[in-house]
Amino acid sequence: MNIDIIKGSNDFIESLRGKKATFMLSMSTTQTCNIQGITQAGLDGLLHLTPTLDAEFLTVGVPRSLANLAVTPKGVPTPALITRAVHLLHPFNHIELLNLGISNIPKVDYFKIHNFDIKPSESIDTGANINAIDIFEKGVEFGKAYECKDDYVILAESIPAGTTTATATAMALGYEVEGKFSSSFKNVPDDIKKTTIEKALSNIQKYDDIFAKLSKVSDNMIIFNAGFLLGCVYSQTKVVLAGGTQMAAVLLVLNSILQTMEGHISSKNIALWTTSWLYNDENSDIKALLDILSFDINAYATDFTFKYSKHPALKLYDQGEAKEGVGAGGSLVYAALNAITAKEITAKVESFLG
Amino acid sequence: MNIDIIKGSNDFIESLRGKKATFMLSMSTTQTCNIQGITQAGLDGLLHLTPTLDAEFLTVGVPRSLANLAVTPKGVPTPALITRAVHLLHPFNHIELLNLGISNIPKVDYFKIHNFDIKPSESIDTGANINAIDIFEKGVEFGKAYECKDDYVILAESIPAGTTTATATAMALGYEVEGKFSSSFKNVPDDIKKTTIEKALSNIQKYDDIFAKLSKVSDNMIIFNAGFLLGCVYSQTKVVLAGGTQMAAVLLVLNSILQTMEGHISSKNIALWTTSWLYNDENSDIKALLDILSFDINAYATDFTFKYSKHPALKLYDQGEAKEGVGAGGSLVYAALNAITAKEITAKVESFLG
Repeated sequence: MNIDIIKGSNDFIESLRGKKATFMLSMSTTQTCNIQGITQAGLDGLLHLTPTLDAEFLTVGVPRSLANLAVTPKGVPTPALITRAVHLLHPFNHIELLNLGISNIPKVDYFKIHNFDIKPSESIDTGANINAIDIFEKGVEFGKAYECKDDYVILAESIPAGTTTATATAMALGYEVEGKFSSSFKNVPDDIKKTTIEKALSNIQKYDDIFAKLSKVSDNMIIFNAGFLLGCVYSQTKVVLAGGTQMAAVLLVLNSILQTMEGHISSKNIALWTTSWLYNDENSDIKALLDILSFDINAYATDFTFKYSKHPALKLYDQGEAKEGVGAGGSLVYAALNAITAKEITAKVESFLG
Repeated sequence: MNIDIIKGSNDFIESLRGKKATFMLSMSTTQTCNIQGITQAGLDGLLHLTPTLDAEFLTVGVPRSLANLAVTPKGVPTPALITRAVHLLHPFNHIELLNLGISNIPKVDYFKIHNFDIKPSESIDTGANINAIDIFEKGVEFGKAYECKDDYVILAESIPAGTTTATATAMALGYEVEGKFSSSFKNVPDDIKKTTIEKALSNIQKYDDIFAKLSKVSDNMIIFNAGFLLGCVYSQTKVVLAGGTQMAAVLLVLNSILQTMEGHISSKNIALWTTSWLYNDENSDIKALLDILSFDINAYATDFTFKYSKHPALKLYDQGEAKEGVGAGGSLVYAALNAITAKEITAKVESFLG
């Protein structure tokens, strides 16, 4: 398994060989996911359970709040399988869960769940109704106070309909992002997404500031983690954003806030790690999103695919379904840095599917 | 892969199974390397770049200060390949670089480079012109203050012409070392080495004390690390000297200084790890050098060879070229202690050569 450099140099990842990682899963829901057909990240009618089930499977190896794991209508299993496989082959030193507004708390014991008194956000087509400045400040405070017990944090997310809110967020902040944002679909349901985003943007008023805009069109995961990153700059915590264009949206929000405040940060300790499916996606452009940033960023992807598998559900990944989520891409880079092979990961993922 | 005991018992290494290591590379140059034909540790005319290129390849996997890695005129690739292979298969927890007088700082980010304001030393045939007591004291202070973040330190070196200065050092201190010191050559260019060493020794005056002698005939790596070892005895840091006869010279210098000061140390936390090529070398005798010491020392070598390889450049190692350097022998012991196999290492080294 090789690591490709999306941006920056390989020094950042090379310095993390053999280092210990805390895996942190941001769990959040937005009622945007209940718009029919907008996402395939989860079970129809039970999409709000996706982050809960992902967290349960990742930590204890079984979904507890429902009999089954999140699977799309096409049968694409959650990328949590990849993250869990890596965790079994070369365990993360800690797994911590961030409750950024979910309906059901994961039924797991012994694992740290950080609570911030954050509610699931509403649907962006009618206004997400988020107290954005409060969420952002909670992120900043958490990052400032956070004492990493390992060498670095791998920060992941599980939030259904997250690419829709991410796209709306970047557009609301005035970025030119046409064709740059990804989707969990291979064939993106553009009409539904577009209509939703247009409706969301129509709620923005001329004199809305950044936080007013975010309150209407974004999601808790993006806003909180933009703050968390800023806090981590203070506490000098090394943080890897494990994800694709949603994590790019986190960086774009931070970028806008810094520009408004005329602030500057040292981004030396921040990086983005994603999957080959996302990096090579023809319908999105992660590198172009990162190129927008006014600060430097190291970004990487492995060349992992399911080429060693014959399982039809996994082959859907190679065809462009799902692509990323639950820190799958970050986990694969972590695996590569710790001498775990693509064959080992494939065999482990297949073992979950029976 | 088995571990042979050169001296002592196997308790020291057994206690380090599964333990975490900091790999520390001492980088130094002596103008002695510019004497025509004296060394093959590097590229002709660019020998001063050898430690820099070794450090770059070891840390980030590519030489940056020159297009190519150090290769001898005969095509023997640097032993850094072995160290890097082990690092990829079972990463060292930290890699730190010691600047003990080099012309070009390695172009790497994120890796700790310790600086001591030490200049490259001059050629020993005209007097190395080292402030030996200053270098030694810097080593002592560094060792005393050093806080190892892992369970032990693997201390390696990259210094072209280092075996020549090592031999001269031991002879200047009055040790009987005829035929005991190694060379990076299979067929040692005895005339050039001998002449250089004779010239070096002729500069020594009757009443020169140890440090005056070292100032004329030694190198920064040897002097600094003798001090570092002494400092580590105070800070109770476990240190493995990863190398052959050059590291034996470090021990001989420490031995002489202790005898002069009528001092004694507990050498329980010091060991030497080297390659099978060095241990089985017919032209040198590492065990005889260690037998000279007035303190106990645990010393080991693996039985690793390139028997699983057909690559002609690697086969030269089995024929006696290069033998040791950049902590190759120490890395192999570390690999053996962590269940990495000779076949895995061979395959990884071959992957670098294309």
